[in-house]
Amino acid sequence: MSTETGLMAELRRVVGPRGFLDQATDLEPYLVDHRKLYRGATSLVLRPDSTEQVSAIMRLCNEARVGVVPVGGNTGYCGGATPSEDGSQIVLSLARMRRIRSIDPLNYTMIAEAGCVLAEVQAAAAAVDRLFPMSLGSEGSCQLGGNLSTNAGGTAVLRYGMMRDLILGLEVVLPDGRILDGLKPLRKDNTGYDLRDLFIGAEGTLGVITAAACKLFSRPAATVTAFVGVTDPQRAVALLSRLRTFTGDAVSTFELIPRIALELVLQHIGDTTDPLDGAHDWYVLLEIGMGRHDEQLRGAIEVELAAAMEEGQISDAALATSETQREMFWRLRETIPEAQRHIGASIKHDVSVTTSELPQFIIEACRLVQAISPQGRIVCYGHLGDGNLHFNISRPAGADDESFLRLAPNINRAVHDLIARYGGSISAEHGIGRLKREELVRYKHPVALEVMRAIKQALDPNGIMNPGKVL
Amino acid sequence: MSTETGLMAELRRVVGPRGFLDQATDLEPYLVDHRKLYRGATSLVLRPDSTEQVSAIMRLCNEARVGVVPVGGNTGYCGGATPSEDGSQIVLSLARMRRIRSIDPLNYTMIAEAGCVLAEVQAAAAAVDRLFPMSLGSEGSCQLGGNLSTNAGGTAVLRYGMMRDLILGLEVVLPDGRILDGLKPLRKDNTGYDLRDLFIGAEGTLGVITAAACKLFSRPAATVTAFVGVTDPQRAVALLSRLRTFTGDAVSTFELIPRIALELVLQHIGDTTDPLDGAHDWYVLLEIGMGRHDEQLRGAIEVELAAAMEEGQISDAALATSETQREMFWRLRETIPEAQRHIGASIKHDVSVTTSELPQFIIEACRLVQAISPQGRIVCYGHLGDGNLHFNISRPAGADDESFLRLAPNINRAVHDLIARYGGSISAEHGIGRLKREELVRYKHPVALEVMRAIKQALDPNGIMNPGKVL
Repeated sequence: MSTETGLMAELRRVVGPRGFLDQATDLEPYLVDHRKLYRGATSLVLRPDSTEQVSAIMRLCNEARVGVVPVGGNTGYCGGATPSEDGSQIVLSLARMRRIRSIDPLNYTMIAEAGCVLAEVQAAAAAVDRLFPMSLGSEGSCQLGGNLSTNAGGTAVLRYGMMRDLILGLEVVLPDGRILDGLKPLRKDNTGYDLRDLFIGAEGTLGVITAAACKLFSRPAATVTAFVGVTDPQRAVALLSRLRTFTGDAVSTFELIPRIALELVLQHIGDTTDPLDGAHDWYVLLEIGMGRHDEQLRGAIEVELAAAMEEGQISDAALATSETQREMFWRLRETIPEAQRHIGASIKHDVSVTTSELPQFIIEACRLVQAISPQGRIVCYGHLGDGNLHFNISRPAGADDESFLRLAPNINRAVHDLIARYGGSISAEHGIGRLKREELVRYKHPVALEVMRAIKQALDPNGIMNPGKVL
Repeated sequence: MSTETGLMAELRRVVGPRGFLDQATDLEPYLVDHRKLYRGATSLVLRPDSTEQVSAIMRLCNEARVGVVPVGGNTGYCGGATPSEDGSQIVLSLARMRRIRSIDPLNYTMIAEAGCVLAEVQAAAAAVDRLFPMSLGSEGSCQLGGNLSTNAGGTAVLRYGMMRDLILGLEVVLPDGRILDGLKPLRKDNTGYDLRDLFIGAEGTLGVITAAACKLFSRPAATVTAFVGVTDPQRAVALLSRLRTFTGDAVSTFELIPRIALELVLQHIGDTTDPLDGAHDWYVLLEIGMGRHDEQLRGAIEVELAAAMEEGQISDAALATSETQREMFWRLRETIPEAQRHIGASIKHDVSVTTSELPQFIIEACRLVQAISPQGRIVCYGHLGDGNLHFNISRPAGADDESFLRLAPNINRAVHDLIARYGGSISAEHGIGRLKREELVRYKHPVALEVMRAIKQALDPNGIMNPGKVL
């Protein structure tokens, strides 16, 4: 496609000069994924600014049988938005489609385009005293369309759910250019099959999501943020149950952090201090948001945590006393990946099991990994309330990256086989992309794969939507 | 199929004598739908007691190209579980598959079979101090599988969502007998397309749901139930927003009731009294559930409602002071359909718009209906918090049913056309079944219909799953 073919000329006409990137320097940012696992090639990045343009692009590419790779903020962990190495695929960036089309505080909904940065969506909701609860590390650069296509999770899933739970309707351009207008911001609509959830989490392999009707919530008037020390994950699970009952399910965040992760953060990340006296094997960062009526919440939580300490369920606890301290508590959790990078290469797993079995899973998984890499430093943290662990292993102190990374296949196999025994998921929130395609075939129920392939064939018979991803 | 063909003999062998009904008296209950809109015919009702039996049945019927109509508690409003008149279809009752397979309070999940009566599922959750929040009028006889297949709504959708929102995984038997095992009770699992939500709400046209992994919640320790008088729906919408903010989104029920509905109930249903002094044009039944910490909730709600009255937002309010009174408040809402039957035939609509536009929709819809039936008695009530109205019209006092029902096509057209102008839904929670198939074709976005048909073709190429329903 290096010369201006008929297709290229037509695509240029569709998107205009601002939407047509074909110079090497302009293309470069689209060739490498966030984790730098893949480097693809392409001669063309299209940046349409309307649904009609996306429709025209897809029609042309479908007729020409050219693969299209949709990309949002390019913050994914599985290479799902990187084109193939052979340069045959076109990249479709939604970044210019970033309008908030409408917002309706009394209906608690917003219609936003796929290119909106997540933080902009959050801000638009806050501006009308509402909450869009999706929250994750990359919210300053990730885009709504990417969050949708990967069914993003994050730190408020416990109370508000994943992206799928936050969406009422979608506008989607199908692989052949037809526009599926399902943007109704209705809470109830039982008129036929649920197509919305088919596109959410499909990682761009079934169509291009161009806009979404998002659910909004009340903004909590009071928020209690606590950092708690516990002796083991089992006690953390019991504490979660206790606090869910105590608050009437108002716990929005419940993150498990091992001592080693806290130490790495304190050592490598600025403006951090240990909120608790003494060392604890495990920590929980938790947050509870409540309405205006609840001025006594903070005091009540203090009393409840004191009772939990009395009973030996927790070892210590500190409540954030200011917004600054709250931010610091969050920094202790959110900079774990960055802190981990300071100690060399790591082998990562984004897995889930039931919350009740998570403590036992951690014990068994550590034992398996230690048999393969006795000195590997296991940094296993994550969203305990969702049963979702980021089970990561950093290379041994003093070892070299390369020899450690050679253990990756063995370690991955051990961890994922264990996940299978627990009936868990090998990709809790990061998706499949390119990274876990082989693992998907290995671990997914074969009938589920057959049904997925049948649906892919039905909706994208020419196989032009994000080829080589997921399936 | 009146003689014992090869297929019949094989099916008898699969389910055994207890699962094989072919006598007229045994078949009778399966021939007529709940609303008595349809009377079908069949020579065989199968009642398998395991997923393997369902699988064997589907394999045999698929090979023989015999249509299969799954049925749960037969409480649907759209004839979705009634066989066709020609007697060519087999009915598949899930009633014997009613095991709670497992329950995990720390993971807040339960795995239950499709034949479980909803009330049994609620009770099993309560027995481990958890809440399964799906709640609707027919909960004593409707079955989980039917709730799933119709994506049931009910009176707690505002806080907890519809059936789709309450399910983590499904076990489904596909039309050719393959078993899709997606029963994982995981809160996060981003491994490929979301097949679960395709079967939920498909009304048995894509496969047979045999079991589900259900989400559970904390049981509210305190519940405040209030009956509120307001001058118009607009004020009710504002009150909802106020209370959502006030309680931190703990409002679980917010039902709109017009004066005429209350009067009908007081007149025709025993053990009911008007909770408020004087007459109000509209009422709201609302409920707020909170956790253990919140002993002051009741007092706080009282103060907040007093403030709303002071400001003219509401006209009067009463809080239930006992469980008996709470039940009476609920009876005022839940017996409206029964009370309405006392005054003759009615023409019903189960529609939704945005909550913010619902007041204006009511005004316009009443105007349109009055132009067609000036004396028709409009009883329009429902789930205001979800934008879902049951917009029903009873025949004029003294008129006869038959001449009134002749207006149905005109009234339906007027109401549904108005819904279309509002971008609303012609079936908010009752589904399509057989009743609204033509309406679906008229009002659904044509591309959505095309995609639905493509999916149906991909999963059920022989068209044996609940033929003649939805599509």
